[in-house]
Amino acid sequence: MSEDLHALQRRLAEFAAARDWQQYHTPKNLAAALSVEAAELVEIFQWLTPEESAKVMANPGKAGRVEDEVADVLAYLLQFCEALGIDALAALAAKIERNESRFPAVRSARPDRPREGEE
Amino acid sequence: MSEDLHALQRRLAEFAAARDWQQYHTPKNLAAALSVEAAELVEIFQWLTPEESAKVMANPGKAGRVEDEVADVLAYLLQFCEALGIDALAALAAKIERNESRFPAVRSARPDRPREGEE
Amino acid sequence: MSEDLHALQRRLAEFAAARDWQQYHTPKNLAAALSVEAAELVEIFQWLTPEESAKVMANPGKAGRVEDEVADVLAYLLQFCEALGIDALAALAAKIERNESRFPAVRSARPDRPREGEE
Amino acid sequence: MSEDLHALQRRLAEFAAARDWQQYHTPKNLAAALSVEAAELVEIFQWLTPEESAKVMANPGKAGRVEDEVADVLAYLLQFCEALGIDALAALAAKIERNESRFPAVRSARPDRPREGEE
Repeated sequence: MSEDLHALQRRLAEFAAARDWQQYHTPKNLAAALSVEAAELVEIFQWLTPEESAKVMANPGKAGRVEDEVADVLAYLLQFCEALGIDALAALAAKIERNESRFPAVRSARPDRPREGEE
Repeated sequence: MSEDLHALQRRLAEFAAARDWQQYHTPKNLAAALSVEAAELVEIFQWLTPEESAKVMANPGKAGRVEDEVADVLAYLLQFCEALGIDALAALAAKIERNESRFPAVRSARPDRPREGEE
Repeated sequence: MSEDLHALQRRLAEFAAARDWQQYHTPKNLAAALSVEAAELVEIFQWLTPEESAKVMANPGKAGRVEDEVADVLAYLLQFCEALGIDALAALAAKIERNESRFPAVRSARPDRPREGEE
Repeated sequence: MSEDLHALQRRLAEFAAARDWQQYHTPKNLAAALSVEAAELVEIFQWLTPEESAKVMANPGKAGRVEDEVADVLAYLLQFCEALGIDALAALAAKIERNESRFPAVRSARPDRPREGEE
């Protein structure tokens, strides 16, 4: 069974502390690093059709890259949260609560698409 | 106590299914949406000095925006993982293991800065 | 006839100087601002199919947003170049020369897709 | 003297046509590619202080990378404009006109910082 998110966040904090990297880990720098890793994930998909993108894990080389970028995004997100004292799980749980009231689940023949930046 | 990451991932999957949004949730689209949310986090910090960026949570309005963007980034990351069958916690644990051997913790007077895209 | 690129770059520099904004215009901040504007362009397309994305200018509201984001991306790129003394046109001309030798134009039945990050 | 922007845009269009790459050049894909290149520019600066970022061109290796990423960002922006029939120079000129009325140049002892996403 895998460690939970907060345990991994602590390991990342110890990892950075042991290398004297906290001096670079301002919230501003970590947000930038997070966005760079997210872009590296986008890069894997940028020329693929929607259908090709759904099959990307069937290619072992690409699957490894995708998992690696997922880990990098999550690592910087947790280090960002560590720097600012944010509980990422609590923030997400609160957001889901809000969205459940904002976007009532009404199944319809012509579903609305998710609204930009609001899901 | 907050729900764990995998429980939140399931809630997000049910939320999207109840709104017929899975058709939009190709891995390619979700990676793009993740990068857009990461950029919204960067935007909060783009004109701040490193020192100002460290104090951003002292401003209640900005603190709320930061937590909101953290939630959005994590939500899209989990939906991306759901679409491709990736275990984000396992991917991060594996990455930390690799990094612990790649970047030995040698404290020194002049620490190396973290290598780009490699932490 | 529109002004040329360098004339617009000078106008942007004067615009920022007249507002005492140069203090915020470090290359680091301008690169971040550029990436935020690029993400706002991505946001317009994130849930569209490839076919829908090709018709986006038929919607006047979206067309205006797209042109606005194009202007923002170009504005920050030119301000970045201004801060570092880079001639964007010369950099692009040099890149095209290099790419013309790196990617010979051989028409074929099964074209290679553009290589990631290399075009 | 360097070619003007529209001449470079035409060369890029011919370059892509000669390689049968237009099929990949949907506006959606080009916007994503643009954002990936912008992130590669951010990556160069992500751990630098504001002061270090201002001196980046003094390092020949980094200077070459910066110019290369500037060229990539501009190349994808022009290919995006080509795909949608947008005149980037006209869009920027119009934006500057609007901003000159929205942000009057009043020099003051405590300048406002540029507003997010609005410059």
